[in-house]
Amino acid sequence: MRAAVMRDQKLFVEDIDAPEPGDGQVLVKTLACGICGSDLHALHHADQMSEMARRSGSDASAFDTSRNVVMGHEFSAEILDHGPNTEKTFKPGTRVCSFPITFSMTDGIRSIGYSNDVPGGYGEQMILNEMLLTEIPNGLASDVAALTEPSAVGEHAVVKANLTDEDVPIVIGCGPVGLAVIAALKARGVGPVIAADFSAARRKLAELMGADVVVNPKDHSPYDAWADKAIPEGYDPKSPLNMLGMGPQPKPCVLFECVGVPGVIHQMMEGAPRNARIVVVGVCMEKDHLEPLWGIMKEINMQFVLGYTPDEFKQSLFNIAEGHINVAPMITGTVGVSGIPQAFEDLSNPEQHAKIMVEPWRD
Amino acid sequence: MRAAVMRDQKLFVEDIDAPEPGDGQVLVKTLACGICGSDLHALHHADQMSEMARRSGSDASAFDTSRNVVMGHEFSAEILDHGPNTEKTFKPGTRVCSFPITFSMTDGIRSIGYSNDVPGGYGEQMILNEMLLTEIPNGLASDVAALTEPSAVGEHAVVKANLTDEDVPIVIGCGPVGLAVIAALKARGVGPVIAADFSAARRKLAELMGADVVVNPKDHSPYDAWADKAIPEGYDPKSPLNMLGMGPQPKPCVLFECVGVPGVIHQMMEGAPRNARIVVVGVCMEKDHLEPLWGIMKEINMQFVLGYTPDEFKQSLFNIAEGHINVAPMITGTVGVSGIPQAFEDLSNPEQHAKIMVEPWRD
Repeated sequence: MRAAVMRDQKLFVEDIDAPEPGDGQVLVKTLACGICGSDLHALHHADQMSEMARRSGSDASAFDTSRNVVMGHEFSAEILDHGPNTEKTFKPGTRVCSFPITFSMTDGIRSIGYSNDVPGGYGEQMILNEMLLTEIPNGLASDVAALTEPSAVGEHAVVKANLTDEDVPIVIGCGPVGLAVIAALKARGVGPVIAADFSAARRKLAELMGADVVVNPKDHSPYDAWADKAIPEGYDPKSPLNMLGMGPQPKPCVLFECVGVPGVIHQMMEGAPRNARIVVVGVCMEKDHLEPLWGIMKEINMQFVLGYTPDEFKQSLFNIAEGHINVAPMITGTVGVSGIPQAFEDLSNPEQHAKIMVEPWRD
Repeated sequence: MRAAVMRDQKLFVEDIDAPEPGDGQVLVKTLACGICGSDLHALHHADQMSEMARRSGSDASAFDTSRNVVMGHEFSAEILDHGPNTEKTFKPGTRVCSFPITFSMTDGIRSIGYSNDVPGGYGEQMILNEMLLTEIPNGLASDVAALTEPSAVGEHAVVKANLTDEDVPIVIGCGPVGLAVIAALKARGVGPVIAADFSAARRKLAELMGADVVVNPKDHSPYDAWADKAIPEGYDPKSPLNMLGMGPQPKPCVLFECVGVPGVIHQMMEGAPRNARIVVVGVCMEKDHLEPLWGIMKEINMQFVLGYTPDEFKQSLFNIAEGHINVAPMITGTVGVSGIPQAFEDLSNPEQHAKIMVEPWRD
């Protein structure tokens, strides 16, 4: 089958063997697969990423970077065939999404898209575990269904934030992760939601996702925008009562870090108000720095998050199919397999692209 | 009055004017005052500390480092005289503790010990606000009563940790802050409590505070000690069920960072198990580094904490006076005012000292 293959920190478009379904698995045709920011990172930091996965006990995402990896974990697919010992609940032709892992008694768990053994959605065919399949409902377009995975990342971040009705969230960075967070916040009626990005195109998408206040941090501090919405009139941060935690207090600030480059956590700790909670959703794979004293003086809470649960994944597909979130505007381009290397380049320009969909059946 | 005065990053033993109580304030004789790790830091990082306080909105702790500061915020005192407009609830001779701030309509709030205007307990006399006084009960020794403040730091950290009955805490660093955390954990029946310190003397104190497992990290990983207590028999971190968050899970790990030097947060993120919560109690005043990917892969939560509330302060005095916590063994030395500069030197040796008490009436 035709696939974009990562090997030695490069991408090659090649013909490789199609995968074969094992016990409890199905063979599927990839209908659509989003290119994820983690894949862009992985192309250059695969060794470090794989090593960290191994050291933190996630063998499922550890792989040999000198051997073939077909990335792609944000997919929708169509069932082609059933492997041995399957229930055959869904007939061939059924369109499905799946939590992006496979498991078997012999190989254990593998992360689809970050494994030498299991190809991801940058190839024409994949194998999936029947147990993890969810049928795509409501005639939802296959490319939009493929946004289930990034939407689940936003859903999970919002769940981990333990929000209350009082919280006023700020989303820093409006790439696909930030946009998914905004969508998940709006789906549960939290807000007003403040969003910040340097890119005009990304700010436009943030508005489409439902952000209530969208700022360019070059011109306008997102923390000032938060203060406008969260600080009660007549509040004096230097009054004795307030210093003792008495009297009217600002609404809580919950910051979502959706950038994932060094220095952003530090900036947020410096900019955040007292008692802010920072949810780190962006995946920074490099060393980073901070000044703990900022965190201490403000009693900041920082929650790092990763992935989502199977339930959050299903909830996201449901949210999209039922129209609770409208993430379709995130899709800014579509390519076939041969277009993947160029798409990886193009995604570096936030004015041009947010999410590029791969439709491997196109070429 | 006789006082140890900080000026231009040096300590001088001098005679200075005694303070005068304003509206609602009392004049007190300092009975005992502990030397705090923050004071050791402040002597060398006062400029940075003061600047950070100012920038984060805490004018109360901002001061001019070229002018006199009498440090000392962990004190017990005896009432000498009442200023104007006081209730005179406590007669002269009454022994009291106080939340270490003063306030007045003209000067606003000042942190006792970190102010050019309000002297701390490294001098013979102080002024305190009548409203913040608590009488020392049960004939509790004055030097032990002065441990209320550091005990409140431990109490606050434990409150902010939002502990459940399931949590198995690890205390990293058994200086006064770590010891206070251990005492607060044991006072509420949390545990087993694991504690780690390179110093044999500090480990001995950790045992006296009630730590259940005490390790020297040179020989024994505190995370292995946690695993012994928290991981159920037969638990396989690599089983498919576990990777999906199903099946029996380890008890939650709550780490208390009580060291406060660069690199410790990074080490803890690397060593911590999945879903660990790190409570940062140690005050690191320098730049620090971390690898966010460790936090992300493990979904770590980090809660920075500072100080305590007036209620937590009173609770700590109560806990000590009622014998719920026995922090007295923390006191490893006593000096008069003239002994303060040497005591600052001596505190660099953890084998020799944990908490040195200043009793300014001694000389």
